[in-house]
Amino acid sequence: MKEEKKLKIIPLGGMGEIGKNMTLFEYDQKILIVDIGLKMPSENMPGVDYIIPNVSYLDGREKDIVAVLFTHGHYDHIGAIPYIIEKIGNPKIFASPLTKGIIMKRQEEFPNNVQLDITEVNNGSKINLNPFKVEFFHMNHNIMHNLGMFIRTPVANIVHTSDFKLDASPVNEKPSDLEKLKEIGGQNIDLLMIDSTGAENPGHSLSEKVIMENLDEIFVNSNGRIIAATFSSLVNRIQQLIALSEKHGRKVAIIGNGMKTNIEICRKLKLVSIKKGTLIKPKDVADYPDGKITIICTGAQGEDRAALMRIANGEHQSIHFKKGDSVIFSSSVIPGNERMVQELKDDILRQGAKVYHYKMMDIHAGGHAYQDEIKEVINLIKPKNIMPIHGQYSMFASLKNMAIDTMNFKEENILLAENGDIVYFTKQKGTVEQSKIASNYVMVDGLGVGDVGEVVLRDRKMLAEDGMFVIIVIVDKQKGQVKGSPDIISRGFIYLRESKTMLFQTRKKTIQIVNKSAGSGGAVNWTYVKDELRNKIGQFLYEKTERRPMVLPVIIEV
Amino acid sequence: MKEEKKLKIIPLGGMGEIGKNMTLFEYDQKILIVDIGLKMPSENMPGVDYIIPNVSYLDGREKDIVAVLFTHGHYDHIGAIPYIIEKIGNPKIFASPLTKGIIMKRQEEFPNNVQLDITEVNNGSKINLNPFKVEFFHMNHNIMHNLGMFIRTPVANIVHTSDFKLDASPVNEKPSDLEKLKEIGGQNIDLLMIDSTGAENPGHSLSEKVIMENLDEIFVNSNGRIIAATFSSLVNRIQQLIALSEKHGRKVAIIGNGMKTNIEICRKLKLVSIKKGTLIKPKDVADYPDGKITIICTGAQGEDRAALMRIANGEHQSIHFKKGDSVIFSSSVIPGNERMVQELKDDILRQGAKVYHYKMMDIHAGGHAYQDEIKEVINLIKPKNIMPIHGQYSMFASLKNMAIDTMNFKEENILLAENGDIVYFTKQKGTVEQSKIASNYVMVDGLGVGDVGEVVLRDRKMLAEDGMFVIIVIVDKQKGQVKGSPDIISRGFIYLRESKTMLFQTRKKTIQIVNKSAGSGGAVNWTYVKDELRNKIGQFLYEKTERRPMVLPVIIEV
Repeated sequence: MKEEKKLKIIPLGGMGEIGKNMTLFEYDQKILIVDIGLKMPSENMPGVDYIIPNVSYLDGREKDIVAVLFTHGHYDHIGAIPYIIEKIGNPKIFASPLTKGIIMKRQEEFPNNVQLDITEVNNGSKINLNPFKVEFFHMNHNIMHNLGMFIRTPVANIVHTSDFKLDASPVNEKPSDLEKLKEIGGQNIDLLMIDSTGAENPGHSLSEKVIMENLDEIFVNSNGRIIAATFSSLVNRIQQLIALSEKHGRKVAIIGNGMKTNIEICRKLKLVSIKKGTLIKPKDVADYPDGKITIICTGAQGEDRAALMRIANGEHQSIHFKKGDSVIFSSSVIPGNERMVQELKDDILRQGAKVYHYKMMDIHAGGHAYQDEIKEVINLIKPKNIMPIHGQYSMFASLKNMAIDTMNFKEENILLAENGDIVYFTKQKGTVEQSKIASNYVMVDGLGVGDVGEVVLRDRKMLAEDGMFVIIVIVDKQKGQVKGSPDIISRGFIYLRESKTMLFQTRKKTIQIVNKSAGSGGAVNWTYVKDELRNKIGQFLYEKTERRPMVLPVIIEV
Repeated sequence: MKEEKKLKIIPLGGMGEIGKNMTLFEYDQKILIVDIGLKMPSENMPGVDYIIPNVSYLDGREKDIVAVLFTHGHYDHIGAIPYIIEKIGNPKIFASPLTKGIIMKRQEEFPNNVQLDITEVNNGSKINLNPFKVEFFHMNHNIMHNLGMFIRTPVANIVHTSDFKLDASPVNEKPSDLEKLKEIGGQNIDLLMIDSTGAENPGHSLSEKVIMENLDEIFVNSNGRIIAATFSSLVNRIQQLIALSEKHGRKVAIIGNGMKTNIEICRKLKLVSIKKGTLIKPKDVADYPDGKITIICTGAQGEDRAALMRIANGEHQSIHFKKGDSVIFSSSVIPGNERMVQELKDDILRQGAKVYHYKMMDIHAGGHAYQDEIKEVINLIKPKNIMPIHGQYSMFASLKNMAIDTMNFKEENILLAENGDIVYFTKQKGTVEQSKIASNYVMVDGLGVGDVGEVVLRDRKMLAEDGMFVIIVIVDKQKGQVKGSPDIISRGFIYLRESKTMLFQTRKKTIQIVNKSAGSGGAVNWTYVKDELRNKIGQFLYEKTERRPMVLPVIIEV
């Protein structure tokens, strides 16, 4: 009997984490890819620029890839393209116009990279990528042109929500297309892959309408300048702030390159509406009364080099904070950035400005559905199986509990997969096999992709903790004796000038250890001597300081 | 005319920050100290163990110090004693019995330190420390024996709230003494120094009664083991968990040394009530049915070596998570720890346990008054001036705005001081002079106190980012030529074995640079040659990798 063909769904990123979303769909040797995103490193990965998905599963499979589809233009969905697209044979790409614009701009940062082959798709587009049939539909998120996907395969019908929320009054675009979801729901959906980022939050996410009203209140109450910081990718929020500025007769200066670029892309696509004369240059801000100025900038996360921090530090050439300014942090704080944001807020307050942030009032809404919205989509799609995507494991678990406890799903129909797992679908059922595919972190550091591994990172962390201590010993080969005084180079350990006694003792100990071994006659085992130096000098330094610098002995025979 | 004597209040820590609380009161050459706390380092201070206050203002003033008073036993109020007390001449200490117990235990960790001279004080104790007269009063916090202070000086009457909240139904102790506050309020208070940590939160902080009810609900609904993690210093929460366990017929195992120690101190002082037979050893947990077990442990912040993490990692010898376990995170997350806590939660969920945390339900309350409570204390004390203490600047600003906007205070009567400022009081008024006293961070790293400064930290951060690259060149003095091939040691930069070509090129470049200088005849300026190597090799490595390791050239003449 011939083995039944199976659909394999293989998430390479985005599962049990926020970031580097990338999923493979494989059937009959053909592979369809959805998204190629990156992830920002956490503070325990010093020096790392980005983390990208491990695509080694695709090695040698280039000709099997039928296409890459992109849901939307956020970097956790498109950012790893420049590092990966050539490796996988530069396949055909399908993306919405705005997503395409952002991808192209990103690609420009890598001038030596290949030309991309991008076809535009929109709400309602249908494409046939044999054996996959794909229909795109509009889902509301906090960037325009976000597309969910209805993917038909010979064994299973799959719906992928992309990132979404069900805001009845979104900014600058229509709500998610519930009629369409209902229609799709009538077509026997075997699997719903659904954004779980908001699955731990009860109720319904805030509408942008509320955000708009609250921002308007700040505009009404501010006589001075308004300085609003948000993510550069949060185009809809930027549009809100521009519309409010126009309503209240304020000119708008935008500071921050990423933000300017995104607005530029949107303008070209006529996706934002900005009246002629609204935008001014930052250097011209002083030409207008304070009450007629809005500054929109990056840096709401307290990032070191972003506009808001530069203004706060007095490093911006024309803008400085002063009494009367109202500063709006219109973004949530990404875990890990809390301290930086707190310090930035404190600095701005010290300079006399007023600060509004999302804990004080609702001036930010995320882009992700809360529990009630997730339920609504599940009810419309009526899937046999649910696979939470785009979230930490705790979000998956929350979605699973909700579906079982309140929606009568069986445990076996909630497929909790992680990166590298294979989700198999036959006509009968879906099952998860755990960790079959390499899906470890691939770190990007400068020009190196994947060359920073555990060893290099461990060394960096060790160097950061207690610094390093290099001892250079010259040995006179003929005499079998240390020649002169050992050189010591140390950084990040102690302030050497204030530790002369300890250095003197270290040199003395070093000479003793080396002379004892080298002077014994016969061949010297220098590896052994170096180990001795590493251990004994390491121990000695620890006794003196309770620190453990990385001790690196060098022995040179002359 | 003789100059009028002034009272100086000098905060050395705790202002514009959370941690290392320490304040000096100086009048007529005499100095009274309140608290000597430490602060935990943030993630941008690798290798640093603690930060302690800079006490250089007290150099040579040892005999002028009349006493040190402690408000309560948390480490941000007592933790720096072992590093500072001898430096300031081991003055007399006054503390409540529990605070004394914790101080003594802390001191035991430093066996070579001096004997402390501690006098116990309690609610209602009055001491005369000429020219200061001090009366202690009970304020409710989340550790027992917390004392506010009414400090009378010849020019001003001052109230210091300590950390506090106005919980009408606290656990294990009485509410804050409002009658006493009212009585003090009738005595012409010139300055109220008030805990501002909760000043950004509207309303009233949660009562421990609510926490107790919610925890009880978890106990009622759990058939398996309950594993509750909290701070080891949160003795009242531990008491709640023990009481609930006794109510529901559960035995209690405590895991985590700090927690065990604190409970031990409290038991000796009869400050916790634990029935005989309630406590069992962790290794005996398996002897009881799961429904009869509570485990209370440290590690709710995701700390690396704490009990909860060790259990989650499978590193604990007898306890492992399993399906049916209910894990309670009964603590808020300290900024900076969010990622670790998320990962820990995910790991526990993966092992099948249920997780309860403070975002899901009210199972934790902090120790600090919210806006309504702060207002109530201000109304009772009726101070002429208010000085927010114990908080970030944004908390100070929030308290200030509240007092001005809703309580008719004038701006000039809200004294916003920072570390190192001097707050002067005469009989007429109080004023702040900014930054007169050294109050920079003093970092503790191993045995070193204050020897890790900006240079060492900068080096550590640089080493962490891109590692280091040592080049060792031997030069033949007579020939003026590099002898042999330069040695290269690198860590945290690239994986050397995979970069042979680059290393070969680096050696070649090094030889060229050195030979060019050394072979020129005449005296060689080795400093110049090293600078050349540092710059040119640094540039070369950057071009090849876009990384900037710390390049350290060593030239040895033989």
